Amino acid sequence: MIHQQTLTIPARGRGTIEITGEVERIVAESGVRVGLCNVFIRHTSASLIVCENADPSVREDLERFAARLAPDGDPMFRHTLEGPDDMPAHVRSILTQTAITIPVSAAAPALGTWQGVFVWEHRTSPHRRSVVVTVMGDG
Amino acid sequence: MIHQQTLTIPARGRGTIEITGEVERIVAESGVRVGLCNVFIRHTSASLIVCENADPSVREDLERFAARLAPDGDPMFRHTLEGPDDMPAHVRSILTQTAITIPVSAAAPALGTWQGVFVWEHRTSPHRRSVVVTVMGDG
Amino acid sequence: MIHQQTLTIPARGRGTIEITGEVERIVAESGVRVGLCNVFIRHTSASLIVCENADPSVREDLERFAARLAPDGDPMFRHTLEGPDDMPAHVRSILTQTAITIPVSAAAPALGTWQGVFVWEHRTSPHRRSVVVTVMGDG
Repeated sequence: MIHQQTLTIPARGRGTIEITGEVERIVAESGVRVGLCNVFIRHTSASLIVCENADPSVREDLERFAARLAPDGDPMFRHTLEGPDDMPAHVRSILTQTAITIPVSAAAPALGTWQGVFVWEHRTSPHRRSVVVTVMGDG
Repeated sequence: MIHQQTLTIPARGRGTIEITGEVERIVAESGVRVGLCNVFIRHTSASLIVCENADPSVREDLERFAARLAPDGDPMFRHTLEGPDDMPAHVRSILTQTAITIPVSAAAPALGTWQGVFVWEHRTSPHRRSVVVTVMGDG
Repeated sequence: MIHQQTLTIPARGRGTIEITGEVERIVAESGVRVGLCNVFIRHTSASLIVCENADPSVREDLERFAARLAPDGDPMFRHTLEGPDDMPAHVRSILTQTAITIPVSAAAPALGTWQGVFVWEHRTSPHRRSVVVTVMGDG
């Protein structure tokens, strides 16, 4: 059994957007009970993470860490035509995930108690992001 | 064909634990000859890596690198309730892997000669970690 | 339906090599119309990235970023027997991808407009790299 659906995620600017509920809904709709669920973001300046979803300060600290690791406007970067936040966005995307494959058990993503799936928008301006969810397995 | 099994990995504290043998055993038990093997850790302060498994100094250097990149007790972090090593553990998890999908060929994970699969515990205290292995393909 | 093929990628030294065309060709040959395509590199000092494939300056900036983050010959590293670029290569591999799973839609990888799949060679000397592509799904 294979089920595929595309989500459109409106991002208001840099930051994380939880999509765990949408992924769970698509797995439920797929009819798959045991298998795999692949989440894929079709962009190179926004990415995916599986992160603690209880305390928002974790994602705020991640944002601070990323801003220190790959600061906007870093003079080392030559790819600056699309703005000072564009090349740092590509770096953040490379260091996190474009694709995450999660096991499906008992008709749900087998995430741990504190795990959430997030789109991490790295550009400072609003973007609409396309995320493909593919569920494959036995019903 | 789908086969799914959960491993419980006891981690004594920060460091790497090789699970290549367990993954190979589960693939063998699955009866799958060609397909995919997904390894997923159900935590956000421990992660997975595929790493050189010949010389332990590689993982010691990785530990040193991670400690410099995201030092324990960094004053930048606000999420400190669970200890000075908790937020660095989330950062290390985000920068490495929660999920790794490995091809299966000839009834075994098609790892390279020097590749091993490791759980990387990022907390300094002992934890029991849950890893789901899902094998899917043709027998 | 499952189709598996191994690519041999000759790398002249440190840098990125686009393999999007090869991955598209293997997906087309597989006969799979909807499913998943897993790309896996069987090495620990070269890795995979999904990256902007329009402007080469993005990958040049990534190279500069990686060289600053994990410099060759860093005195912190003890694993130096295979040369000053070997341990930095393992670090770069750990921070990027060994495996990427891409959705297949309409008999092609469902990559975004600006996404390309690249082998990122991290060693400075030439190497031949082995990449396994596995396509699974419905025809």
